[in-house]
Amino acid sequence: MTGGMKLGLIGVGLIGGSLAAAWRAAGAVTSVSGYDIDPSALTKARSLGIIDRVAQDVADAVADAEVVVLAVPVGRMAAVLTDVAAAVPATAVITDVGSTKGDVIAAAHAALGTGSSFGRFVPGHPIAGRELPGVEHADAKLFNGKLVILTPTEQTQPEAVATIERAWSATGARVERMDAAEHDRVFAAVSHLPHLLSFALVAAIAAAPDGERKFGFAGAGFRDFTRIAASSPVMWRDIALANRSALGTELRTYRALLEQLQAAIDNGDAATVERVFDVASRARRRHGKTFDAE
Amino acid sequence: MTGGMKLGLIGVGLIGGSLAAAWRAAGAVTSVSGYDIDPSALTKARSLGIIDRVAQDVADAVADAEVVVLAVPVGRMAAVLTDVAAAVPATAVITDVGSTKGDVIAAAHAALGTGSSFGRFVPGHPIAGRELPGVEHADAKLFNGKLVILTPTEQTQPEAVATIERAWSATGARVERMDAAEHDRVFAAVSHLPHLLSFALVAAIAAAPDGERKFGFAGAGFRDFTRIAASSPVMWRDIALANRSALGTELRTYRALLEQLQAAIDNGDAATVERVFDVASRARRRHGKTFDAE
Repeated sequence: MTGGMKLGLIGVGLIGGSLAAAWRAAGAVTSVSGYDIDPSALTKARSLGIIDRVAQDVADAVADAEVVVLAVPVGRMAAVLTDVAAAVPATAVITDVGSTKGDVIAAAHAALGTGSSFGRFVPGHPIAGRELPGVEHADAKLFNGKLVILTPTEQTQPEAVATIERAWSATGARVERMDAAEHDRVFAAVSHLPHLLSFALVAAIAAAPDGERKFGFAGAGFRDFTRIAASSPVMWRDIALANRSALGTELRTYRALLEQLQAAIDNGDAATVERVFDVASRARRRHGKTFDAE
Repeated sequence: MTGGMKLGLIGVGLIGGSLAAAWRAAGAVTSVSGYDIDPSALTKARSLGIIDRVAQDVADAVADAEVVVLAVPVGRMAAVLTDVAAAVPATAVITDVGSTKGDVIAAAHAALGTGSSFGRFVPGHPIAGRELPGVEHADAKLFNGKLVILTPTEQTQPEAVATIERAWSATGARVERMDAAEHDRVFAAVSHLPHLLSFALVAAIAAAPDGERKFGFAGAGFRDFTRIAASSPVMWRDIALANRSALGTELRTYRALLEQLQAAIDNGDAATVERVFDVASRARRRHGKTFDAE
């Protein structure tokens, strides 16, 4: 890393704060100007030394930035990108940390146009998090050993991708490039659908007349299965809708399998039930060590 | 506990072995005669001191028992009960550890008749387990602080229930009595359905052309959601079919909710998605501490 950049950070929560701390520790950035719609997040981030300067708005945060990071919920990306486009220096590289990529790319395209501004936008998705939100839980080591996916388009400038890739690599993250549409299909299957299914199970029990009694008998299996149902409903609503095409397809496939299992259970068809359970059990055991290493 | 009983143990796996060790440690039983269809389980149990005597068959294990415990998969209960009925002393109390109760009670009724033999059968379900199966992982403390549910019928003799309740209580378990049909509804919702849903998700991804690649991007949320999909497919096939009426009903209710969510996602109906996610997130946070204590 030859000399750190000036970072304009929009969204100073767990991920944005961790990114700022990690990029600074790695020497990728030397100063951070931050903006968040929650003033208390900015105060905390300033007192923790995660940001150097509290910006008054999005334009103020990015006005003299060399690199801009959008770490806001995917539902807010379009609005923030419009504000960024109006104020960002023509040479700045812009990236994001959104969990969905197709919709963020579309929003960037709309806000930044088809020219070199859009060419300096590098869509990104660090696969990291923790249960407690907020900049007070930010951790410069959060991305160490974790995967960061970049989904550049055909118009994205190679130097812009290289700049963002260098910054992430310096934090100890593994960087992988991927097609945005494939990214959205993969994460619909292994992240967005499991969240939807877990939310739905807890909601179904909560809606039952004897729901409270049922929760009282839940054990360790239920605890693990429903851990992700404690996630932010607004953040996951936004992700579900931002990735609605791929998620809708995954959900449709899954519902067809449940329909088969319903028929098998209703009819006492042991062979079908065992076949599905067996395929799953083998696959889960085969991949279990990989997941546990994440 | 006034004097320990002679235990005839059918099924010497993790739960049966832990029960024998726990009941012996608590003074509830003084000798254990064990039988299992797997001879190696018996050899291990004998060398670990969990059983005192390796029985030749079910009849041999229960011939001079004062208490009989059936710790076999629910799919094998009917056959084992028939063998027990042919050899068990008229005064022995019989109990089981099956995850479903209505079907085990029906099997006991068929095998033991409607008279005093059936009256000495006490249906039970200890809510405890661990990831590694087999008597080599048996633990006398497995039930300490855990819940054991007994579901006596109107014909079950109160003294028989009291005998089994004393033995469990002496191990540090909390004993709760419950109607068998309610038990089966509750565990269909908080245990059997989550297992089915987790198996189904992993099976759906495994069946996709790019399934292996998708598994490669799974993170901590997927790991927790699918941990129970590594469970025994045969054991869970048996449980799903043993409890097919209650599980079928829970699955139908859940599928109706997924249908609503599919429509909401397809139509971009953010309000419906957020409402379901929000109900779930609140309930999961409210009950999270309870589950974690299990």
